[in-house]
Amino acid sequence: MNENMQKIRSIECPVEKTVNIIGNKWSILIIREFISAEGPLRFNQILNRLKPISSRTLSRRLKILTEYNVIKKEIVSTTPLYAEYSLTERGLDLTHVLKTMAAWSTKWY
Amino acid sequence: MNENMQKIRSIECPVEKTVNIIGNKWSILIIREFISAEGPLRFNQILNRLKPISSRTLSRRLKILTEYNVIKKEIVSTTPLYAEYSLTERGLDLTHVLKTMAAWSTKWY
Repeated sequence: MNENMQKIRSIECPVEKTVNIIGNKWSILIIREFISAEGPLRFNQILNRLKPISSRTLSRRLKILTEYNVIKKEIVSTTPLYAEYSLTERGLDLTHVLKTMAAWSTKWY
Repeated sequence: MNENMQKIRSIECPVEKTVNIIGNKWSILIIREFISAEGPLRFNQILNRLKPISSRTLSRRLKILTEYNVIKKEIVSTTPLYAEYSLTERGLDLTHVLKTMAAWSTKWY
């Protein structure tokens, strides 16, 4: 088990667990992009959709989300090889969280 | 209308609006404290509940959440005077968001 996962398991409050995994502007927006794309995305596609995110931030966020099994990275074996990212089952299940977030701001702002 | 509110109104995506208001670890944990307290809290009470948050961060977050009308600050006119904070109606309505966040981590981690 990686270090991040160990940290998460040591947190008792379930809200705080989720906050530690996705409680960050870019993480939530990255997940939103996958939900709206309804399929895998390459690094540059996410980068373009999330301008002005920097490559460094995107790459760091993807790495962390992959460690938490929210996102998976797969190598597509064409020539040239390329990597693509997609939501895991638990990542896709965040759709409920994003829907309640959207409903809240639609109601109040 | 304050500057933060203007910024929020200029964002089209409802997920992104919410993220800009509460997409931050401490903001969500502050809201959680009010929900679990079921009533107003003084600055030092929140500070103690959220250790190791710094007073500076707490004070900044409370100010922003107040500008977004998620939290309200009231002066209680006893001697000596003191200020207390509580959730507004829209702040309380974030209970749904926090519940789906908690349900997600309980299911997957």
